[in-house]
Order: sequence, then C-alpha cells, then structure tokens
Amino acid sequence: MTKGNINVSVENIFPLIKKFLYSDHEIFLRELISNATDATLKLKHLTSIGEAKIEYGNPKIEVKVDKENKKLHIIDQGIGMTGEEVEKYINQVAFSGAEEFLEKYKDTAKDSGIIGHFGLGFYSAFMVAEKVEILTKSYKEEPAVRWICDGSPEFTLEETTDKTERGTEIILYIAEDSTEFLEESKIRELLLKYNKFMPVPIKFGTKTHTLPLPEDTPEDAVAETEEVDNIINNPTPAWTIAPSELNNEDYMKFYHELYPMQFEEPLFNIHLNVDYPFNLTGILFFPKLSNNLNIEKDKIQLYQNQVFVTDEVKGIVPDFLMLLRGVIDSPDIPLNVSRSYLQADGAVKKISSYITKKVADKMASLINENREDYEKKWNDIKVVIEYGIITEEKFAEKSDKFTLYPTSDGKYFLWNELEEKIKPNQTDKDGNLIILYASNADEQHSYIQAAKDKGYEVLLLDSPIIPHVIQKLETSKDKISFARVDADHINNLIKKDEPIISKLNETEKESLKRNVEESINDKKFTVQLEDLDSTDAPFTITQPEFMRRMKDMQATGGGGMFGMGGFPEMYNLVVNSNSEFAGQILKTEDNEKADLIKHALDLAKLSQNLLKGKELTEFIQRSYKQLEK
Amino acid sequence: MTKGNINVSVENIFPLIKKFLYSDHEIFLRELISNATDATLKLKHLTSIGEAKIEYGNPKIEVKVDKENKKLHIIDQGIGMTGEEVEKYINQVAFSGAEEFLEKYKDTAKDSGIIGHFGLGFYSAFMVAEKVEILTKSYKEEPAVRWICDGSPEFTLEETTDKTERGTEIILYIAEDSTEFLEESKIRELLLKYNKFMPVPIKFGTKTHTLPLPEDTPEDAVAETEEVDNIINNPTPAWTIAPSELNNEDYMKFYHELYPMQFEEPLFNIHLNVDYPFNLTGILFFPKLSNNLNIEKDKIQLYQNQVFVTDEVKGIVPDFLMLLRGVIDSPDIPLNVSRSYLQADGAVKKISSYITKKVADKMASLINENREDYEKKWNDIKVVIEYGIITEEKFAEKSDKFTLYPTSDGKYFLWNELEEKIKPNQTDKDGNLIILYASNADEQHSYIQAAKDKGYEVLLLDSPIIPHVIQKLETSKDKISFARVDADHINNLIKKDEPIISKLNETEKESLKRNVEESINDKKFTVQLEDLDSTDAPFTITQPEFMRRMKDMQATGGGGMFGMGGFPEMYNLVVNSNSEFAGQILKTEDNEKADLIKHALDLAKLSQNLLKGKELTEFIQRSYKQLEK
Repeated sequence: MTKGNINVSVENIFPLIKKFLYSDHEIFLRELISNATDATLKLKHLTSIGEAKIEYGNPKIEVKVDKENKKLHIIDQGIGMTGEEVEKYINQVAFSGAEEFLEKYKDTAKDSGIIGHFGLGFYSAFMVAEKVEILTKSYKEEPAVRWICDGSPEFTLEETTDKTERGTEIILYIAEDSTEFLEESKIRELLLKYNKFMPVPIKFGTKTHTLPLPEDTPEDAVAETEEVDNIINNPTPAWTIAPSELNNEDYMKFYHELYPMQFEEPLFNIHLNVDYPFNLTGILFFPKLSNNLNIEKDKIQLYQNQVFVTDEVKGIVPDFLMLLRGVIDSPDIPLNVSRSYLQADGAVKKISSYITKKVADKMASLINENREDYEKKWNDIKVVIEYGIITEEKFAEKSDKFTLYPTSDGKYFLWNELEEKIKPNQTDKDGNLIILYASNADEQHSYIQAAKDKGYEVLLLDSPIIPHVIQKLETSKDKISFARVDADHINNLIKKDEPIISKLNETEKESLKRNVEESINDKKFTVQLEDLDSTDAPFTITQPEFMRRMKDMQATGGGGMFGMGGFPEMYNLVVNSNSEFAGQILKTEDNEKADLIKHALDLAKLSQNLLKGKELTEFIQRSYKQLEK
Repeated sequence: MTKGNINVSVENIFPLIKKFLYSDHEIFLRELISNATDATLKLKHLTSIGEAKIEYGNPKIEVKVDKENKKLHIIDQGIGMTGEEVEKYINQVAFSGAEEFLEKYKDTAKDSGIIGHFGLGFYSAFMVAEKVEILTKSYKEEPAVRWICDGSPEFTLEETTDKTERGTEIILYIAEDSTEFLEESKIRELLLKYNKFMPVPIKFGTKTHTLPLPEDTPEDAVAETEEVDNIINNPTPAWTIAPSELNNEDYMKFYHELYPMQFEEPLFNIHLNVDYPFNLTGILFFPKLSNNLNIEKDKIQLYQNQVFVTDEVKGIVPDFLMLLRGVIDSPDIPLNVSRSYLQADGAVKKISSYITKKVADKMASLINENREDYEKKWNDIKVVIEYGIITEEKFAEKSDKFTLYPTSDGKYFLWNELEEKIKPNQTDKDGNLIILYASNADEQHSYIQAAKDKGYEVLLLDSPIIPHVIQKLETSKDKISFARVDADHINNLIKKDEPIISKLNETEKESLKRNVEESINDKKFTVQLEDLDSTDAPFTITQPEFMRRMKDMQATGGGGMFGMGGFPEMYNLVVNSNSEFAGQILKTEDNEKADLIKHALDLAKLSQNLLKGKELTEFIQRSYKQLEK
C-alpha cells in the first residue's frame, strides 16, 4: 500500500484562478479594494490598541486609471507589508492573512470591520491583468519592496526606494482582452456598484471646488477654484448608524443615495439591527406600490461588511418582502452566494424569519403611532401585507394588528373594528357574519348602492391577490364568509327572517318568468324571480360567489378545478316581480314584449359591464332614435 | 532581488475546493457522471481506432444509493485506470486527463463527445463526501487498484482483487451535512435535471417488466414479471439526430420528454444545426403564447455536449426568443456561465445572431409552406415576432416576409398585400397611406362599424407592445401613418377632397355649439361641430391618436414625456350638425335641453366605455323609468 499526499501544482491551478475564480471578472476591483480596506482597518486597530506607535490620521484609498500606459493603480495608506510578509502572504495562493490577523487579535478585533476571507482575492487581479506589481512599505521601520509577477507562477521580489509612504500600491498591467477596465467610466461604475458604502474613503479623480470670495471683493471679481479629492463613497452609510441618531430626513437622504434614479419618496422605513444569534443590520423601505406586484427595478441590496455582494436576495428575504427596497448587511452571509446554497443554509433561514418578524412589529407600531397617516398609505403598501399574509404563516398570525379593510366610502377598519361594526346588521339568520365587498367601486356601483341602501358596509378590496387573502381569512376565522356585492341580490346575500310580500300571484309569476325566458332565449342566463322592494331594480344580473372566485383565482395563477379549459360564463338574471316594470311586461302586447324585455336586459347588462360590441352599438343607435321621437 | 515561484499548498486550496468550487453543491453528481461518460467514450474511441483490442459492447453507467451505509456509488464500464494512472490523474488536483486524451488523439477524437474540462470535477465529490473511495480496473491487463482519501490531503493506494470488471467505481461516504444526497428521490431529481440526455445509458434502480405469456397459456395463468434495468436517460435526444430523420411526431415526443408537465402541444419547431464558425445544435419550440409576455415557466435549456448546464439563457438567446422553449447544445459555451462573462464573449454574440437569423428564415418558410395554418397560429406567436421587430434590427429587416396584419373581420394580410389592398381607398388628400386599427373589437365596435361603412379595412392589433411596433413601422416606412378608429371622426382620419354640405347655417351652428357646451359643462370634453352624413351618430367621443398612444406607451413601460404624473384625460365630443338630433336640440325648450343633451352624451360615453359608477347607475335608473312610461 502506498500513502501519499494529494498535490496541487501552481501551473495547473493558476489558469483556473485566472479564468474561473469568479464568474464575473469585474469582481477583481471589489477584491482589491477590500484588501486595501482591510490593510487600513488593520492599521487602525493596531494604533487603537497601541501596538503601532504612529498617527493613524485620515487614510484614503486611491484608484487611478493610466489609460495611456494601460495601467490601473490601487493605492492604500494602510498597514503595508515587509519583504518577509510579501513572501508569506502573497507568494502562497489561498493563504488568508486577514484570517490570521483576526485569529491573532480575536479578543480585540471582533468589530474592526475587517473583511478578509479566503486569501484568493488578490489573485483575482490576474483575471484582467497580464502583469501585476506590488509596491509596499510596512508601518514598521523596514525598507519598501517591489513584487512583480507576470501570471506565470514566477515572481521577482526586491527592495526599493520608489515607495516612501506607508501602505501598498497595486499596479495592474491590464491585459489586451480586458481594456474595458481602462475606461474611467467603467471603473467609476464598478466603484459605485461595489464600494459605494465601504468604510474607508475612496478617492477617484479630482473635482473642482469654488473658493469662497473674501468679503470685500469687487463685484466683477472671478471666483477662484481649486482641485480637491473626489471621494466616491460614503464611509458611514445610514444603516451603520444607531437608529436613535437618525431622523426621517436622514433616512430619505440615504434612500436617494441608494437609488439615485428614484424620485419618489418611500412611505416607511424599517431599521434592522440584530447581534444575536447572528449579525445583521440594514434598512428596508416601503415604496409606493399601489397594485403592482411586478415592480422589481430597484431591488434590495445585500452587503457584507459594507461591501456590495448582490441584489439577488431571493432566499434571504422572504418573497413578499422582495417588493421592498433597501439594504441588508451581514457578515454571516457568504460572499459567494448561490440560491441553492442559501436555501440550505441555517443562518439564512433565521435571517429570513427575523426580518419577517421585524417587519410585522414595525407595521403594528406604525399604525399605533399615526393611524391617519397609515390609512393614507394603505393603498400603496397593501400588496406587501396581503402577499405576506398568504405566504408566511408567522406574518399572517400577527397581521390582524396592522391589516386594514377599506370601505367603498373611504373608511378603514382593523379586523376587530370591522367585526364589531357590522356584527349587529350583517349576521345572517344562520349566525354567519357576512362581509360584503366590491372589487371596483365604479364597475359595481349599482350593487354597492343597493347594499348601502340596506345600511351595510361594503369593503373595497381591489388588489390582484385578494381572492387568496379572502380564502385565507375564511379558513382561519370562525363563522365568517365573504360575498361580493354582485354575487346575488342583496336580500339573498345576507338572508334574514323577514316576511316576503308578493304583488303577483303564482299564475302571474309563472307567466312573467315564461315571458322573460322566451324573450331573452340565452343559456348564459338563469332567470330567478324574487319578491323584492318595488323600488329595487326590475332586472339585476348576478354571478354566484363561488364561480366568480374560482375564475379570479385562475386569473392570478391559483389553479382551480377547471385547470385547462377556463370557466363557462354563467349568470343569474334576478327579476323583481314586485317592480312596476314586472307588471308592465305582463300588460304589454305580445308583439312588443320581446323588445321591451330585451331593452331591459341590455340595461341590466350595462351595470355588469356585459353589454359590448354589436349589442352595445345597437343599443346606442336604438336609444338615439328614441330621443329623436 | 529574489526570484521564486508562487506556490499553492494543498492544505490551503482543499478547503476552498470543498466549499466553493461550485456554488451549487449538487453539481458534484453532474461532474462524476461526466467523468464516467468520458471514461466510456474514451474506451469507445480506442476500440474504434483499434487501439483497445476488446469488445466495446453496451456499457452503462450505474448510480446506486446505499442509504443504510451512507454511501453513493457511481459505476462505469469505461476505460478504467491503472495504479500509475491514478497517481497521475487523481493525486494531482486540476490536472485534466480528458484534455490530455483529446490532445493525444486530436486527429481522430474531435467528435468523440468527450466532455472533459478542468480536471477539478472529481474533487467536487468532497463538497458532499467525508471520504471518497475509487475502485478501478483498466482495460489494459493490469491489476485493479483501490484509492481512498478522507479529505485531508492524505490518500492511500493499493492493489485489490475486489474489482474484477473493467471500469471505475466511485464510492462517496456522504458527509453529515449532505445526507439529502442519500435520498433516492433527490438523486433521481438530479439525474433528470443534469443527465437526462447524456450519451451513455444511466441505470438507476430497477423496474418490473411483465413477461409475455406463451401462446397456449390457460386463461387463469398469472403473467410472470422480471426485474429489468431502469435506464433514466435518453442517450440520443432529438437534437442530436439529423432533421431529415425526424418527423413532426418525433419533435412532439421530444417536447414532452423535455417538459413532462406541459400538456399543450407547441405550434412550431425550429431545428438548429451549425458547424461553422461555432458548433451548435438544438431545437426551439413556439408554445401557445397569446398576449402573455410573462410566461417563463418552462425555459430554454442550455447543454454542453448533452450535459445540462443551465436554463438561464439570458445573453445567449436574444431577449425576444426567451419566450420560446427548447434546447441549445454547444461545446463552445463555457460550463461556468455568468451573465457578464457571456455578454462579453464573442462566440456567444455570434450564437445569438445566428439563432435570430435562423428563426426569421424559418418563419418565412413556414408561411410559404402553409399560409392557412400560419394564419391560424398567428395570434399565439405574434408577441414573439412583434417583440423581435422592436428589439432586433436584423430580425425587423426580414419581418415583412412573415408578419401578419389581421383585420377586425378575420382576414390576414402581409404588409405588401395590405398596402396593395388599401392604397386606392385609404390614401388621404396629402398622399399618406392611413392604416386604421382597433385594439379591441368589442370596445371599439361602433367606430369599427363606421370605418367599415366607408369601405375601409380595420386592423385588429391587440398585443400589449403594439404601440412600439407601430412606432417602429411609421419610422421605417415612407408616407404611412397609423390611426386608431376612435382617434377622430372617420371623415377626419382619412381626409379627402370632398364637398361638405351643411344643413345648418352659421348662426344655428353657433347656437348648437353653445347649447352643448353649456349643458355638458365638463372641461374633459372639447366640443367639435362637424358636417357629417345625416345618418352618422349625433354624438361621437374621440381621443387624439398622439395622446392615446403616449398613454399606451407609458402603460407598457415605454416612458413618454409625462414621466411621473400620468396623462390628463382629454376627449373631443364630435357633434354631427347634420343629424336629426342636432335639429331637435335647437327645437327643444330651454328647460329640457340640458337633460336631452346629457342623455345623448351618456350614450356617446357608453361607446367609449366612459360611462361608469354613479353616472351609469343613474343612466340605467332613468332608462328603466322611461320604459315604464
């Protein structure tokens, strides 16, 4: 039996690193700036604990494009490296200096913000550079060194006097196939994407600054300008600051910093802040959503210690909260995020349920703090809440505290308020509480009016997922039932034990029914005679709740029993046998009956938005003719 | 100056491979089966060129789950390895044996289908296994060997008599955190996802097969069954077969193989097949789309040499073709696909434009082969074509050959046919060809009717992106202009040099206009008197083309000038001063005028779907009252 060690040769692994270390080549800049940040924060830590006896000052990271010479420079003023350290940290692929540092200073450096991960970041430079040069001078009193490697695994290392300041300068000699990284605009774009909120100031280019004029300046004096460093990042973004130190304006400012192309103000913000059992900070914003479930332009951004990771947060944030915007920052989320990896990750699952809980708590406190304001914003946030109710049980359980039910005349009830208000009048003879609703105040106006005439409240529930919400409520609450106002005549929707008075006798009724059926001769409509108030509409078209709901569900992708084919269009035609018009039908000559009934049916169709096309055109032409009489 | 080699230690790189080689751990199975496939195809090649003097036979790959002992076996009957070869290929991370093989046999093995890439695949086993064992016996007359490694970089290697058959068996001792890969259902899912169309049969589990009964069997005999291998893949999927050897049924069968949950048949298929300047095969299907731009359930799948890579094909397939389904297979597409990498890749750009061209050519030939069938399917494919026209210039240039323009009465024209048909009658007095269209045959019925009464053709253009298509056509073709039928009175949409006859004199007209304006008293409507045929509608509501089109564009996300606020609702009320009703207005007593005009306005609103809510309810109540008179 042979024993041995598996071995890996740098000749084999190097081409792989160059091609496939990261699937996005642009990541190299994020990695190098993370290294520069770490170098700076390490120095900060060492000065803070007195181990580095120097002035920390205000170190910056500088990025310079030298297009002419095809070079890109990344310069920090951090801890630097001695020749020995370069040997140790650079010449050994995948040896993480940051990890070693954190291990060594674990008692003090826990919150230092040092990013360090796998010691591979530096080598990502070779994804875009044909040659890489390091000039570095340690904070210790030792000579600066220059390291050069052309991507073959051979390097040179020598002392140099070219670098006199503390810190490290990385010079990338950009390869022919990567010249895009010599464009200022490309580098600016990458810095703004990945490093916009990193904790050390990043200088990129200069900008002109107008100097203030002295007080006694003559009017025609020209203001002088000077060039100043252009700092491209905000080292202390709002989410890193304690909520108690921020006011609403600060949050709005941060929102616009995050989404510069977004002009509308968000409605609410939720500041996340947790230490245990995992670390997570962040700010979520509710944008104005109205009924749009497909908004996805400005997505939630995921950071790890202020380094942008991704805006694909599926799996980390519960689905319903992906409608929100903002930032989540956690050192516990792996930088190398993939969906299936995340879904299996325990920490990620906890994060998801923490965020859900936090959002529920925040909504409950918002409605308590300012009910009026919350009501005003309800229409723009309701889809988030409703989507949460149907997809996250934990969220649904808390939702009665902050879910509003708007009525067609502009009132807003919490569930318990609604129940209390309508219980006396809207409980039917079997003890079920009937909640009436409309999906469109315009289209269902006549039905809403009929319900209001009875003193009933009519909710206005118009978001696209409401059928699912209703189903959820009906199964989770006792003895309640939702009915859309046009599901039947209002007297039948909430059945009560009241005496019925008939103006017509049975023979007349039979004859009326036969007249109507013969005249309309359309299988879509089932004629249903009812003894209603004489002032109620003569004809009313209704569609049973169950059938309409199945259709709605199908439309929003909820399946339903007629999976493939779609539903038949079936309606009831409620004929008010106590109306004047019923009497008139009976009186009218046989040869005019059909026209009369057909015109009345057209009117009933109008209130259900069913009169269309040729039928509508003919109805209008007929009506114009009547006006000309 | 020091010179040296960068070095990489296996202790550092091994943990990285285990954690981050692939972001999806499940990839390990794809990698091991790819290796097994390569081992089999290598043997096939060596026998075919006479270098291996053995019978190739019908080798299989077998996958076995041993849940009890927490082991997963992958067994092939391929080329096998000698002890020396294990030393060379396995003990050296990232050394690709397949690449070496292809290099050695480059003259003959070009089309062997060998997948081999970076020599890392095998090590992906350590993402899920705490220990890996290899049992292998070469096709050469040498003893079998056993190799074992527990993930520390130490391994053992010894000769063994446990393996007597040619080939390689990989045994994974699944780690505690990866026990999901001991579930049969999980392994089956992965095999079906990644290996469903791989070129060597893969056995997974057994199934029962009923033996045929001998002819003279008594009636009460029970059929015997035997267990047979369950082959989970189809080694020769349709796209690997020459189109000339496939009929429509074969394509449909393949479609259902690809999308087992899809019951509806696709409408067309396009077989792709190109050798130069890149290799690509595949089959694209047109599903029934109707007007839905958001279908994305069964996506196009990307393969590399029959290994599934991804179904995220954005960047490879032009956007508009992502509405299609099917398969694309190319060895030139990197297995490690990322969007930004792909977008920069030259080969990928060529692939995209090749596919676009191929689809355009296919559409042109389909319409020529069977015009009637193509017309029938037009409504289900038009969004793809239209989306292509507005996003891909090369596609747009060819599109006149296969883009249909349906009319409201069910005819279908190609552009040149349409032009020829309508030129005589629909050219206005300035020589512009006016193309009339409706977006909804029901809602715009009265307007369509008015246009047809003049002998005009009215197109029915109802897909959601049609405003963009129209804009594209108007800018790319000369002296044409689209107008929706309700953009103005039909006489004004196609202006001709015809004499105008007025029944009313100027004073009467002024008085009529004042009457109408005073009665309706609504800034939304601009009253516009026109001398029309006496039989034309008394009142018609129109909305100018430009304004409506901007609104439509905004609705489909096309921007427009009123970015934030939305458009004001503005209409014209065309009053036919030659109608009977105009005369009646003038005659009617002052106290009844307003009611009369208001009712007529309501009728005009009805034909534009503008009478809603309270107004509609009141109109209906008023009309019922009139019936009772």
